[in-house]
Amino acid sequence: MTPRLLDIQQNVLSKNDRLARELRVSFEANHLFVVNLVSSPGAGKTTFLEHTLKQLGERAWGAAALVGDLATENDARRLERSGAPVRQIVTAGICHLEAEMIGAHLAGWDLPALDFLFIENVGNLVCPASYDLGESLRVVLLSVTEGEDKPLKYPPMFHSSDLVILTKIDLAAAAEFDRKTAYASIQAVAPEAPVLETSAKTGIGMQAWLEYLVGRREQWLAPAAGS
Amino acid sequence: MTPRLLDIQQNVLSKNDRLARELRVSFEANHLFVVNLVSSPGAGKTTFLEHTLKQLGERAWGAAALVGDLATENDARRLERSGAPVRQIVTAGICHLEAEMIGAHLAGWDLPALDFLFIENVGNLVCPASYDLGESLRVVLLSVTEGEDKPLKYPPMFHSSDLVILTKIDLAAAAEFDRKTAYASIQAVAPEAPVLETSAKTGIGMQAWLEYLVGRREQWLAPAAGS
Repeated sequence: MTPRLLDIQQNVLSKNDRLARELRVSFEANHLFVVNLVSSPGAGKTTFLEHTLKQLGERAWGAAALVGDLATENDARRLERSGAPVRQIVTAGICHLEAEMIGAHLAGWDLPALDFLFIENVGNLVCPASYDLGESLRVVLLSVTEGEDKPLKYPPMFHSSDLVILTKIDLAAAAEFDRKTAYASIQAVAPEAPVLETSAKTGIGMQAWLEYLVGRREQWLAPAAGS
Repeated sequence: MTPRLLDIQQNVLSKNDRLARELRVSFEANHLFVVNLVSSPGAGKTTFLEHTLKQLGERAWGAAALVGDLATENDARRLERSGAPVRQIVTAGICHLEAEMIGAHLAGWDLPALDFLFIENVGNLVCPASYDLGESLRVVLLSVTEGEDKPLKYPPMFHSSDLVILTKIDLAAAAEFDRKTAYASIQAVAPEAPVLETSAKTGIGMQAWLEYLVGRREQWLAPAAGS
């Protein structure tokens, strides 16, 4: 990497931070709680999000999703089964989502009618860590089949996340998942992030996740309610 | 992304391609067959490589490994158990390995004494696709727990690979792996790449992989032998 490339990357990041701040102001004005879901490919973001959207809808919450991928609209099609409004962002080779892409894909949506917006980032434990999307909550998903040391090997992503979701917990025994080592790895890199164990397949942990989500949104709205 | 950033990224890639060509000439002169292993985080590269190094050693092949990670030397420590020479490349936040990093980490190794060099890339299904490391064989690993559509969602990585290794095949039933859909996804993006099903845990497919590897090296050496 040349210093010049690094300088220009800094400019790109600064521009992204400015756009993310503008998005955040707009989300706050609309009382729209935005969640950025990050993980490696195959950790189970789409299945987890499909169940989340469906269960929020059943509880009469307004929820929508933007979903990023290098190619294909597969994930948007899967998520549409939940009944929620969904749009695909095809990044055409870019390894992360940027604030500008989020802004461009919100046009025409009735934001005040929504309570939650989920952004499913490109499956990548490196690049998305540097890009603020204006979210109120960043959630990193880690499946029990990936190996317990991933937080230590991808520290920026875990360090920048507010919550760690362990997915595919139903496979823990088959994958010989070492819970103690995994929690120690998370603790070393993201000591303040709570950890929730889930399985979208069996439903384990989904109720706790929904309660956490609704509670975080209430906390986030509280200052506005008091003003 | 600004056009200027793209221009400079093109320059970085051109510089990488030039260094990769130099590496390739050096590898050929040393009859050293180089394998670049790529996958998402947690697909099982390190375990697969540990078994590969051990079994090549038992068959009296000279094999060594370079292993890339954003942080930690965990993988090098794990791979050293195989008895093979191993070096860790810590990329300090860079999402892929570059040819320059490979060249810098070969110093002092007796290359003519080696038959195989394995490069374990950073766990990432996007960025490493663009960086030639001078390898003779690029192998993408896909675990049965990741989802059958990953080739369609990360086409450059699968398209640029010579071989697809399905890992953790012992978990296929527990993960409800849909073999037919997975093969169709691979076929759509990488129609010429053979697919090998493996489990480092049970040993399934490892013999076929070693035979494939030795065969590819012989084919690769054949023109040199005939000259």
